[in-house]
Amino acid sequence: MDVLEKIRADLPLSEGRMRHTEGVVKAALTLAERHFSFLPEDDVRTAALMHDFTKEYDVEQQLALCEKYGLAVSEEEKAAPKLLHARTAAAVAEQEYRLSPSVCAAVRWHTTGRPGMEPLEIVIYFADYIEENRTFPSCIRLRRYYERQLEKRKTASEALLYGLAKSFDLTLLTLIDEKGLIDRTTVEARNYYRMLIKKGNTEDLWKK
Amino acid sequence: MDVLEKIRADLPLSEGRMRHTEGVVKAALTLAERHFSFLPEDDVRTAALMHDFTKEYDVEQQLALCEKYGLAVSEEEKAAPKLLHARTAAAVAEQEYRLSPSVCAAVRWHTTGRPGMEPLEIVIYFADYIEENRTFPSCIRLRRYYERQLEKRKTASEALLYGLAKSFDLTLLTLIDEKGLIDRTTVEARNYYRMLIKKGNTEDLWKK
Repeated sequence: MDVLEKIRADLPLSEGRMRHTEGVVKAALTLAERHFSFLPEDDVRTAALMHDFTKEYDVEQQLALCEKYGLAVSEEEKAAPKLLHARTAAAVAEQEYRLSPSVCAAVRWHTTGRPGMEPLEIVIYFADYIEENRTFPSCIRLRRYYERQLEKRKTASEALLYGLAKSFDLTLLTLIDEKGLIDRTTVEARNYYRMLIKKGNTEDLWKK
Repeated sequence: MDVLEKIRADLPLSEGRMRHTEGVVKAALTLAERHFSFLPEDDVRTAALMHDFTKEYDVEQQLALCEKYGLAVSEEEKAAPKLLHARTAAAVAEQEYRLSPSVCAAVRWHTTGRPGMEPLEIVIYFADYIEENRTFPSCIRLRRYYERQLEKRKTASEALLYGLAKSFDLTLLTLIDEKGLIDRTTVEARNYYRMLIKKGNTEDLWKK
């Protein structure tokens, strides 16, 4: 059994979340092919399958995994444990499945994003937001926005950059609306991609 | 000539900004009397008068003041020099007028706010937002929101806490709308006051 099959068999996810995960695999493959065709297809599949590995664990299980893998937990993470799953899933990816650093990073940053994401990180982060099974209003908005950008912008890279910047704005708007904690990394990522657009560096979405 | 008269005579501000500054003095005195009656009236007046001292200086003058007073300038501040005036005005308050640390801190934090503000900081920050001459939509919204909270909440302190939390949300919404850089301290302050409300610590707006 190869690692992809093993992960799929191991995934401790409900039917609903499994549907979402398969949606992320599909969207990630489309995004990768369109924007970063040099990415190995198996990396895209693996990162997408792994991204929510620990999502359905409760807070105690999350904290136990942090303990097990030596992850420091901040006060903010204790207040908003929702963000922990990206870190614990990345630790599982690294420690249990020995996946590559780029795949682990894509799992690690899939929720908050970060400034200067690598191609696979962008693909998984963005696919998680817009995959076809998402029905949350901001996901639907982002999916449509990105599709409009693909028609409207000069290059696919520029369209993705606008989509990325928009995604962080939508996350912030949702958190303000829900009175949830705003993660610092999300704000830094949002500033980073907004500044790329502002400076006209629309082809600098990602640099080698 | 006492220091208040001297500052008023020295203020390098246009007529319009002077009107705003007088509005902040007035609003700050009202807020201080209502929420923190122990604050010395002269401190409130002085901090309010000083808060925009360097606001009309251009970027070069701001950077020259940073150089003069030994203030480090981050990349983000260079990209959004609008935030520099609070730091340079605080340096002028300290170095040229020898004002007290609490007055200087109120000048320093009047634009972004910060988590755990002291009473005078809260007064100047909030007065700057809602003073009667402000016509910016989010200022009008906040002024009305705060007035409703005063009628609706059990205590004045609780009303001010809700007003503060709302102010940061409105700042974020404006920055998202204008595609401006979001300052990290504003986000931290917003999380801090939202968490006070969430935890039900509505009387912990400020602790000795």
